[in-house]
Amino acid sequence: MIPEDLTQSQFDTVYNLLSLVIASQLFTAVFLVLVLPRVLPRYRQALVIAAVVCGIAAYHYFRIFDSFKDAFVTDAVGGRGTYTQAEGASFNEGYRYVDWLLTVPLLLVELIAVLALARKVQTSLLWKLVPAATLMILLGYPGEISTSDNVRVLWGVLSTIPFIFILYVLFVELTKSLDRQPAQVRTLISRLRILLLASWLVYPIAYALPLLGISGADAWVLKQGGYSIADIAAKAVYALIIYRIARLKSYADDPAFARIEEGHEPLEEAKVPRKPR
Amino acid sequence: MIPEDLTQSQFDTVYNLLSLVIASQLFTAVFLVLVLPRVLPRYRQALVIAAVVCGIAAYHYFRIFDSFKDAFVTDAVGGRGTYTQAEGASFNEGYRYVDWLLTVPLLLVELIAVLALARKVQTSLLWKLVPAATLMILLGYPGEISTSDNVRVLWGVLSTIPFIFILYVLFVELTKSLDRQPAQVRTLISRLRILLLASWLVYPIAYALPLLGISGADAWVLKQGGYSIADIAAKAVYALIIYRIARLKSYADDPAFARIEEGHEPLEEAKVPRKPR
Repeated sequence: MIPEDLTQSQFDTVYNLLSLVIASQLFTAVFLVLVLPRVLPRYRQALVIAAVVCGIAAYHYFRIFDSFKDAFVTDAVGGRGTYTQAEGASFNEGYRYVDWLLTVPLLLVELIAVLALARKVQTSLLWKLVPAATLMILLGYPGEISTSDNVRVLWGVLSTIPFIFILYVLFVELTKSLDRQPAQVRTLISRLRILLLASWLVYPIAYALPLLGISGADAWVLKQGGYSIADIAAKAVYALIIYRIARLKSYADDPAFARIEEGHEPLEEAKVPRKPR
Repeated sequence: MIPEDLTQSQFDTVYNLLSLVIASQLFTAVFLVLVLPRVLPRYRQALVIAAVVCGIAAYHYFRIFDSFKDAFVTDAVGGRGTYTQAEGASFNEGYRYVDWLLTVPLLLVELIAVLALARKVQTSLLWKLVPAATLMILLGYPGEISTSDNVRVLWGVLSTIPFIFILYVLFVELTKSLDRQPAQVRTLISRLRILLLASWLVYPIAYALPLLGISGADAWVLKQGGYSIADIAAKAVYALIIYRIARLKSYADDPAFARIEEGHEPLEEAKVPRKPR
């Protein structure tokens, strides 16, 4: 539920944050499309998915932004005033779930794609991660739109089960498949998983706010801010790390490509520790 | 705060200036994307970032333009009238900060990227410049939205500290890394730094206007004009110099590429003074 009133600063903060998300996602998508030729073809699938994810997020934030603007009327003159709920409009919080339903499984596909693991390992990981991610979002939704605390807790707990399963697959199962990756790439994947965990934790916290009795305008502004920053981290920043991994792996796979791209040999630490086959 | 009234000429001047910024940024971005193949791959990252910066600026100016239009109502008939503040709308000055938060760090990344310095030097410079730029913008924001002079001074002074640090890194530390650059490139980099310094100085001056007691419609129009011209200089003109540097360095690195692009050998002064390795 949106608060009854917002001050000018509260309104402007949410307005600016939502717009910041649009700019970040939209131009990360543009960036990824432009740098596509800067990685070897085998890593382009990951960048294309990353661009699509950021594009989908930008689209939804255009809608969230408009929905937020229309949900309030103001008596402001010359830039100062109070914002009250508009009649005949509402802020559609459910949009975020539509976005996540599409983007969260794709974020996991993006990660697996950039690793270019053996086909069998890749298929096995995707068959675990994608259904779990879809289930996690679907199970969260009935709780988010409910006004009953009990219903919120029930679906929240159900949604946490696939979340924990995803963490298990990423932090335990995936680790076993990383020994063929260059050292720098392994470091980046560790950072990527921590970024993913840290940003994904914002969502259950925001979900739990009403249960903790935290409400009012400030809490609502904080929640919108949390979602916005988490969405930038989990999609745009995440995509840039995926790009960095794709670059490093391209250099490690093909030193001639690295020379053209950088003007010198790839760095020693980017080289793949090749196992005898 | 926006002024109570604007004359037709004042309104038109701001309207035209804001639109000029949109056209400049948007089509500089388009230009940069189109000329991407005209530099060697190793310099394309800089151009891609420059294009993204101009694109982000264009997006924000679309919003600033709409926000400005909606903030006034007029009794004009046939193109002449007076503009007064509209009820239920406000001109969102904070947008500029959202823009700068994304673009100012990227402008510095763009500069470092086009120099293609040794990886270690590059990383070290970026770890100084990017956090300092982000801090500079974040520290300016509370002062900008405050109506108290003291608060404005406090945050203004705090924001100046990272600004001076950035100037130190660009004018002292960076200079030490330029001995491998062709002579023409060194000249261009000097110009680029002066352009950057000159255009960035507009922002603290505009920030200080309310402190100097300069207000009213004319001062406000001047401030919008100053911001607009500074944004064109600091992003679009800056990007075109970056492109010129990338071209010169591409020629110096690869005379065969220069012949294809220009139909003749690269100019003597564009050649790199190669150190024995």
